[in-house]
Amino acid sequence: MKTVHALEVVPAVMQQLQVGAFLTVAAKGRTNVMTIGWALVGILWQKTVMMVAVRNSRHTFGLIEEAESFTVSVPTKDRKKELDLCGTLSGRAVDKFKECKLATRKAQKVSSPVLDIPGYHYECRRLYKSALDPKMMDKALEELYPKKDYHTLYFGEIVACYQTD
Amino acid sequence: MKTVHALEVVPAVMQQLQVGAFLTVAAKGRTNVMTIGWALVGILWQKTVMMVAVRNSRHTFGLIEEAESFTVSVPTKDRKKELDLCGTLSGRAVDKFKECKLATRKAQKVSSPVLDIPGYHYECRRLYKSALDPKMMDKALEELYPKKDYHTLYFGEIVACYQTD
Repeated sequence: MKTVHALEVVPAVMQQLQVGAFLTVAAKGRTNVMTIGWALVGILWQKTVMMVAVRNSRHTFGLIEEAESFTVSVPTKDRKKELDLCGTLSGRAVDKFKECKLATRKAQKVSSPVLDIPGYHYECRRLYKSALDPKMMDKALEELYPKKDYHTLYFGEIVACYQTD
Repeated sequence: MKTVHALEVVPAVMQQLQVGAFLTVAAKGRTNVMTIGWALVGILWQKTVMMVAVRNSRHTFGLIEEAESFTVSVPTKDRKKELDLCGTLSGRAVDKFKECKLATRKAQKVSSPVLDIPGYHYECRRLYKSALDPKMMDKALEELYPKKDYHTLYFGEIVACYQTD
């Protein structure tokens, strides 16, 4: 396990996001993982911050609304099969960790675990959340919401960032 | 002028943000520039996105609320003096371009200009905005808002990104 600078590895993280990364959240005694293709990273509120987006129709939504933390694990080896499965299965119906043969490992600084895969791991403590207001959206975004299941944006302080082999 | 990949240069951009970058906005026939130290960058809504934050007490706030675009110019040579001035003067009281001896140049794809300085230039078309809701903020952020002049977050699609010498 090697500590990395959260902002230095952004190019690699963003390239992998185009294939997918894993968002893991634990709350209310349950843990779920979902595939994400979107994230913003940078400096906000004098802190290093990662922002993720979760649709209110997702099983993860119910967890992250209650959670104080989330983690993002960005694979550095091929995980296309698991990313596809975790992007289509719902944690309401199945145990995604079992179905995708994915294990978690205890995070260093937050209660949500990280995935036990080779990759970059971001541990984030929630600072702010904001449900998307469709009235403020450019029309170009409407086609992403035919079912009006808008995202909520979660802003987390990156309290630990490291790479595992 | 050299086209660069908006996400590839994020480490350099984030390092410079710790000193400062310039946010330029044109609207209602006026143009203003302010110093920013915060920004998020990444992928959102299937687009390459930059997010900036402007306090509602700022002169720029009145402009960016009306604008369809904003630009961020990230200096690659020392601009500490101009960054300090543009961070303390108000566009309400003075012409910051004149006071700071800064010139603008026409942007490639948006109506707000970029600064005519050596640096990375991000041209952003506004996709979404969201006024911070203090009720959703972690207590750790309260000290940033003793006057309750909260930021509004502006999310723009990066429609052009390039480096000038």
